[in-house]
Amino acid sequence: MATTTKVLLVGATGETGRSIANGLLEAGGFEVFAFTRPASAKKPQLAELEKKGVVTRQCDLGASEAELAEALKDIDIVVSSVGPSDQLSQINLATAAKAAGVKRFIPCAFITVCAPGGIMWLRDEKEKVFNHVKQLKLPYTIIDVGWWYQIATPRLSSGKIDYAMTVANDELIEEGKTPSAFVDLRDIGKWVARIIVDPRTENKMVFSYNTVMSPAEIFATVEKLSGEKVDRKNVPKEVVMKRVASARASSETYPFDATKFTPRIAAEYQLSWGLRGDNVPEYAKFLGYLDAQELYPDFKPISFEEYTKELLGGTAVGVYTDRISRIY
Amino acid sequence: MATTTKVLLVGATGETGRSIANGLLEAGGFEVFAFTRPASAKKPQLAELEKKGVVTRQCDLGASEAELAEALKDIDIVVSSVGPSDQLSQINLATAAKAAGVKRFIPCAFITVCAPGGIMWLRDEKEKVFNHVKQLKLPYTIIDVGWWYQIATPRLSSGKIDYAMTVANDELIEEGKTPSAFVDLRDIGKWVARIIVDPRTENKMVFSYNTVMSPAEIFATVEKLSGEKVDRKNVPKEVVMKRVASARASSETYPFDATKFTPRIAAEYQLSWGLRGDNVPEYAKFLGYLDAQELYPDFKPISFEEYTKELLGGTAVGVYTDRISRIY
Repeated sequence: MATTTKVLLVGATGETGRSIANGLLEAGGFEVFAFTRPASAKKPQLAELEKKGVVTRQCDLGASEAELAEALKDIDIVVSSVGPSDQLSQINLATAAKAAGVKRFIPCAFITVCAPGGIMWLRDEKEKVFNHVKQLKLPYTIIDVGWWYQIATPRLSSGKIDYAMTVANDELIEEGKTPSAFVDLRDIGKWVARIIVDPRTENKMVFSYNTVMSPAEIFATVEKLSGEKVDRKNVPKEVVMKRVASARASSETYPFDATKFTPRIAAEYQLSWGLRGDNVPEYAKFLGYLDAQELYPDFKPISFEEYTKELLGGTAVGVYTDRISRIY
Repeated sequence: MATTTKVLLVGATGETGRSIANGLLEAGGFEVFAFTRPASAKKPQLAELEKKGVVTRQCDLGASEAELAEALKDIDIVVSSVGPSDQLSQINLATAAKAAGVKRFIPCAFITVCAPGGIMWLRDEKEKVFNHVKQLKLPYTIIDVGWWYQIATPRLSSGKIDYAMTVANDELIEEGKTPSAFVDLRDIGKWVARIIVDPRTENKMVFSYNTVMSPAEIFATVEKLSGEKVDRKNVPKEVVMKRVASARASSETYPFDATKFTPRIAAEYQLSWGLRGDNVPEYAKFLGYLDAQELYPDFKPISFEEYTKELLGGTAVGVYTDRISRIY
């Protein structure tokens, strides 16, 4: 009799969470549970997941450790993909997971590769959780990812791809020459389905990405496939550094305030992968990551060309459509 | 023509630094330099190292990056074993090492294994330096070690081994049942001589230790070999927790004050390896360390029995004799 692995998702209705839910369901062999706070119980994204077979377990991340441990009963693996403001709520969650006998804990990484210690506030928040998991001696895997195709493409002046655009995205930092790893958001869950049951990835960091390109190459590919000229705005290093300094100055660490932290997160991403070039496989290895492409050479990730063709064909799906009012 | 590797030691006159200097000189193939501040130029430990062939390069750790880079000229590998109060001075040193083209940087770890994030202040200080080195993309190796034999043995009431004792050391935490890795201080340098030129350890953490024993076994071995009954004072968990809480409360992070931080460092060691059992090879592996015993199966470390026989035979050498007034 085949046994299934019981996976509980925390943050299942978010962009990364839905990719993971779909990835696990498609891979098979998993029973997928979603940890939902009462406030999220009526989200349409949740109903959609339930239709696909995801079972919800209502519990608030702010609940007591005993209540959290009860809600984690019989779960083999926890995968967390909570939003920026909820990172530290994973601390009690991890403690409860240890008490509940969870076999592997996947704390919310799922961002670009960056060393901790002051470059990215969001990375450092996550690192606090990672340290706690390590102190608990709770088996873990940290999974970071490429920058999403879905927010990497520039706008076309014809407006043809506005239906799937989140932000205008006409900026290229230092002419867009710094390479970075990119991923199709939909592939994240497929990578995760392999990584979390792989003994080689236990207590390791894994970098999952589809391709390495420079933003200039991303723009050029969109131009080539669309036949349109893309608007570019060059952003020199000094401007990035000014944005970082100003966003840091105006954001106090607590309490979290999205209007202050979103610009900071954006500016620090520009600093880390746009300018420093942190988000590449070589640097990930230097930091100790395993490379998902090397672990799973048979995995066929969606290429950036394929994604762009979908986008131009009108069948791509935009991100954050529930949260961010479109700019067009 | 054989080429030698130029290694610069920072903190060469300390206990760990001298072990490293000796280990490199004995191994051969190294030119050993010692970075000394003008104030240390007349230390007898330095004269001793110079007699053995160590070349001093005078420079203050507080010097400008340009001056530091000049003093680091032509150096292949930097090994730092600076004292607790000097950890953050390695930040400029690492930046200068990157500028000077140093091929591998060994920041000062050389303590017991412990996850970062609030268990040990000393570990967290070191972690700030490690993060900086990682941000610099400067090749590194982090080397942690077992608890020194030289401070692990209990006192004998005959006074026979007082000549080489640093502290009375009659305490056993929770009956001394928690295993820990131990190392002979003299072997640290021998491990280091292998690790720093090994391509397998580049950008990795390595755990170097001679043996794993419980403190109760340490005491029993000393009893067996000496024929004397050893005094034991049991320290229950609650007492350790109280010491930690009180030492933390009375130590402000900056400025560093040895009278406040020494008790904190001592209490947090008791918490980490004495109580939590962090300092063992299994946990080191969980945290990502390579195991020096697995890397170098031909290495013959000094056993604890051998050390104890030396100690009882009157030929052991105590530690910190220049700094700490003996308690007997």
